[in-house]
Amino acid sequence: MRARDSLQISQFHVHIASYNNFPTAAGLASSASGFAALVASLAALYKLPANASELSVIARQGSGSACRSLFGGFVAWEMGSNPDGSDSFAVQIAPKGHWPEMHALICVVSDSKKGTSSTAGMQRTVETSPLLEYRTKEVVPARQKRIIEAIKAKDFNTFANITMQDSNQFHAVALDTDPPIFYMNDTSRAIIAVIVEYNRASLASGHGIKAAYTFDAGPNAVIYALDGNMRQIVNLIQYYFPQSVPFNDPFQLFSEAPGTLVLPDGFNLAVAKRAEVGAVSRLIHTRVGGGPRVLDDSEALLDTSGLPSELPSK
Amino acid sequence: MRARDSLQISQFHVHIASYNNFPTAAGLASSASGFAALVASLAALYKLPANASELSVIARQGSGSACRSLFGGFVAWEMGSNPDGSDSFAVQIAPKGHWPEMHALICVVSDSKKGTSSTAGMQRTVETSPLLEYRTKEVVPARQKRIIEAIKAKDFNTFANITMQDSNQFHAVALDTDPPIFYMNDTSRAIIAVIVEYNRASLASGHGIKAAYTFDAGPNAVIYALDGNMRQIVNLIQYYFPQSVPFNDPFQLFSEAPGTLVLPDGFNLAVAKRAEVGAVSRLIHTRVGGGPRVLDDSEALLDTSGLPSELPSK
Repeated sequence: MRARDSLQISQFHVHIASYNNFPTAAGLASSASGFAALVASLAALYKLPANASELSVIARQGSGSACRSLFGGFVAWEMGSNPDGSDSFAVQIAPKGHWPEMHALICVVSDSKKGTSSTAGMQRTVETSPLLEYRTKEVVPARQKRIIEAIKAKDFNTFANITMQDSNQFHAVALDTDPPIFYMNDTSRAIIAVIVEYNRASLASGHGIKAAYTFDAGPNAVIYALDGNMRQIVNLIQYYFPQSVPFNDPFQLFSEAPGTLVLPDGFNLAVAKRAEVGAVSRLIHTRVGGGPRVLDDSEALLDTSGLPSELPSK
Repeated sequence: MRARDSLQISQFHVHIASYNNFPTAAGLASSASGFAALVASLAALYKLPANASELSVIARQGSGSACRSLFGGFVAWEMGSNPDGSDSFAVQIAPKGHWPEMHALICVVSDSKKGTSSTAGMQRTVETSPLLEYRTKEVVPARQKRIIEAIKAKDFNTFANITMQDSNQFHAVALDTDPPIFYMNDTSRAIIAVIVEYNRASLASGHGIKAAYTFDAGPNAVIYALDGNMRQIVNLIQYYFPQSVPFNDPFQLFSEAPGTLVLPDGFNLAVAKRAEVGAVSRLIHTRVGGGPRVLDDSEALLDTSGLPSELPSK
């Protein structure tokens, strides 16, 4: 009877209402989250027996990185080898609760330049970058293997080094595209300079690497750090990139408003100039989350007649 | 008797006074010109029988690109294969007068960031960039061969394409360095956007590529173009990057001060924002020059007693 049920359900016509609370077209994976939600919702509605990796093959067609967003926790995107991409899917490396100390600080960077969409950009890179194939075949597989091991072993040093090196190499092949693609801007560069100096000072005083930056297809930085170092990092970023909006402090790093800058030992303040207010427009402090969830009817975006209810205001 | 003379001369002690009229440490090859002048002067003084390619092996040890500056005209730097660099030298591809239509516009870009020296930077790239070796072995030799042919054939289209692609790839491996090196800044990016749009509009209206940008180890652009297009290019650059100093117009492109912007057909002005005055601090319009020359005594930097005479004021 299940097969019969599925068949009937699959003939449903559907109304789809979609709402995304993340900045769109900012290189912050908003299309990944949207396509993952769409595929997960339809799979739930149609009661598809597929597992998340199978669904990820479908989600990938909307936006490459959507395949990862079908899972919570730490997720790897397996490149696959079939030319049609049918074996390119995502797998969960570790669940959401595996490494609870791992936090992320998203620095939303203002950019006057109209960006290149990540999907269109990657297509042009594939067509024109002489370095891309070497990166894909010779560099990425070994790095992916090593970072998966580092995540499983909760080895922050290795995780951070590979994260930064691979972010840089992704942007290197973007720049090797014809015409070249620049996702990062001077503010992004300055964030890198601050994190590089923060790690240098930490290593020089006998500690390990404390932070890792990564940039997706846009100027915004994501800084990974263990929770114990996040207060110092927020402090540093706010010193160099003052914002007009107060820091929304979801993990209560600061009992009061972030005040005096307490410098890490040996940190060289001259490594970057203080930016004008708003170069980083806001900070989002978050950590590893769960995957798509089916919400209950009280949170539906469609009303009982099947039409969109009022959208939440931004 | 010549051998005897040389021997005696080689025991001279020397006073050296050096003056460079080019911006230093700006990624504009000032150290290349300085080391080439030093080596050429000593070779002339000591009456060394070496030719310029032999001298270039020596000059290269001061600053890699100095080996090229021992020649006028169009010069290639042969990588060589000996680990000690003894077969890494420069050769002239074509003399100064070969392609007189080839002009260059140097855009001196302001940068608040203290730069990485090109010699130190390249060393770190060699040590840490996974992409560099592939670039050196698999990409550069074929490009070098093709651009030499293009120069000999005065094929601007091919010359321009390779020039831009290779500039981008040089900066890509800088970015692939750990920690990453950024020589270009947002002004450099905007200059690229303007030139890319200028060429796109030209190709769209049935013409060829009209300009090629290239960036050495700094934010400054060198724009190559045939002389007939230079007026339009200066106009465009001055529109987007207004300067506080008037354009020194050595080739008299403008009968009066550069005034109204005459846009190329189909050019999309929105491709970049107009920068604040001074983002490009000045423009230098030049063309292919000659190599080192021995000046006569009236231009000596040492007086007859062998001590430095007053230096020319900057």
